[in-house]
Amino acid sequence: MHLALDLIGVFTFGISGALMAIQRDFDIVGIAILAVATALGGGILRDLILGDTPPLAFDRWEYLAVALASAAVTFVAHPELKRITRTLLIFDAAGLALFCVSGTVKALDYGLAPIAAVLLGVTSAVGGGVLRDVIARETPELVRPRSELYAIPAMTGATAIAVAWELDAYEPALGAVIAVAVFGFRALALHRHWFAPRAPRS
Amino acid sequence: MHLALDLIGVFTFGISGALMAIQRDFDIVGIAILAVATALGGGILRDLILGDTPPLAFDRWEYLAVALASAAVTFVAHPELKRITRTLLIFDAAGLALFCVSGTVKALDYGLAPIAAVLLGVTSAVGGGVLRDVIARETPELVRPRSELYAIPAMTGATAIAVAWELDAYEPALGAVIAVAVFGFRALALHRHWFAPRAPRS
Amino acid sequence: MHLALDLIGVFTFGISGALMAIQRDFDIVGIAILAVATALGGGILRDLILGDTPPLAFDRWEYLAVALASAAVTFVAHPELKRITRTLLIFDAAGLALFCVSGTVKALDYGLAPIAAVLLGVTSAVGGGVLRDVIARETPELVRPRSELYAIPAMTGATAIAVAWELDAYEPALGAVIAVAVFGFRALALHRHWFAPRAPRS
Repeated sequence: MHLALDLIGVFTFGISGALMAIQRDFDIVGIAILAVATALGGGILRDLILGDTPPLAFDRWEYLAVALASAAVTFVAHPELKRITRTLLIFDAAGLALFCVSGTVKALDYGLAPIAAVLLGVTSAVGGGVLRDVIARETPELVRPRSELYAIPAMTGATAIAVAWELDAYEPALGAVIAVAVFGFRALALHRHWFAPRAPRS
Repeated sequence: MHLALDLIGVFTFGISGALMAIQRDFDIVGIAILAVATALGGGILRDLILGDTPPLAFDRWEYLAVALASAAVTFVAHPELKRITRTLLIFDAAGLALFCVSGTVKALDYGLAPIAAVLLGVTSAVGGGVLRDVIARETPELVRPRSELYAIPAMTGATAIAVAWELDAYEPALGAVIAVAVFGFRALALHRHWFAPRAPRS
Repeated sequence: MHLALDLIGVFTFGISGALMAIQRDFDIVGIAILAVATALGGGILRDLILGDTPPLAFDRWEYLAVALASAAVTFVAHPELKRITRTLLIFDAAGLALFCVSGTVKALDYGLAPIAAVLLGVTSAVGGGVLRDVIARETPELVRPRSELYAIPAMTGATAIAVAWELDAYEPALGAVIAVAVFGFRALALHRHWFAPRAPRS
């Protein structure tokens, strides 16, 4: 179940990376590389922090295969896409939602305290996107001024997981529900243009 | 003692990250994220390299709490600050000084050779600031042309720690003194505009 | 033998980092730092992923010494260099070739499956260069649009190593031959301007 969530997250993050690469006019190799880096970056960081080496992405061939498949699908399908930026953000939101669930659960499973597990869940959820944006030389969506709520949905989801876990109420189906809720929260924030307040200018 | 040094470093680095975020007009979530990334980044890298997983920042809740507190304090206090850039550099200097001491000591404690411990001390001292500058899309202060001595104070301090350690003369109080000296060196370099020479242009 | 390959790779990557720093007008400390980061970055990432902590670069003093030597040699020799960019790319190509061999072999030696070993070999081959370009705020050569084939030679070399290993035909001399072939492939791509195709614009 968590493998499936993780792999869907790999796929959707991979698409966001491939779309960013197409937008920046990268060649076909650059598209594959940015897709793979985006798809696998957050999970590798998560596993390094947990001391689970080699990381899952190097331990199971499905990860690389799914990441490469996301690049191939994007390459073929992108002329169909009318609005690349919006599509990129939607797939990124799906990756964010899925990785915040799988990352938080894995951290709790490894015995991390709830607060640390939330921190690691959010780190693994945002890690791939930050790597994507740094390589493509964009200001990371994670902190970009005047962009819609991004980290807040992931933090909310990770906190919900940790609370359920502490109450012994966590089960994989609940994880899937929370992932859908996080995705919905982020998508709604994009649609309704929900922003966090800025610091008052002195 | 070393925990205290480390946490003060977390706090001062966090303030530098929050100030950079305010300068770049990030929203309140972006401020918290850049503060946390700056505050915890160098120490997480240090612990990953030493194989101490999960890193301290995930093992003890004080790290995240102090990092978030630095963001909150900065958010409230920043309209009082006349010169944000200068303040940012002073708090960054304090983080640099404290992390070069705690990083070098931890590396020696883990049995690294003196030269490797100096390298790791410097890496952990500069890591958070590089992460901050990369996320905010600034040229890292660490290498920025026409900026005052930055790595040299950290290297000097790390070397002093390693020498004292080899002579069996190291004790925590000496570490605190060296941290103050590194901070003073960097602050003086900023104040007096000490630059390293550049390569001759051919 | 592999230590020698690795150290030559450290030296040539270090030169590419130092040249980039000179090009960007970094001071002498910035040159040393970018040389060291470029020279050691890929190998440190490789070792963290394999769980080999502390990474070789912290375990053997030769790595730091060779990295610093590459900075010193570049600093002294660079006014002789007519075309810095071209020279940078040639030394980068040598580092790419040597690290793709040493990284893939080390991964196989640690029991990774062939596909994972290829992924790790390529990651360690490109890691130092990406770190160099991110710190210097260049679009990474790895993905830069309209740049000659970069990852493909590394992937080809890593695949050749993995195939030979699976056939029990690998030996260090073959590794050296493959490194030369990867370097020749990349150099030829640069010379003949071999590009990968771009995605069709919709």
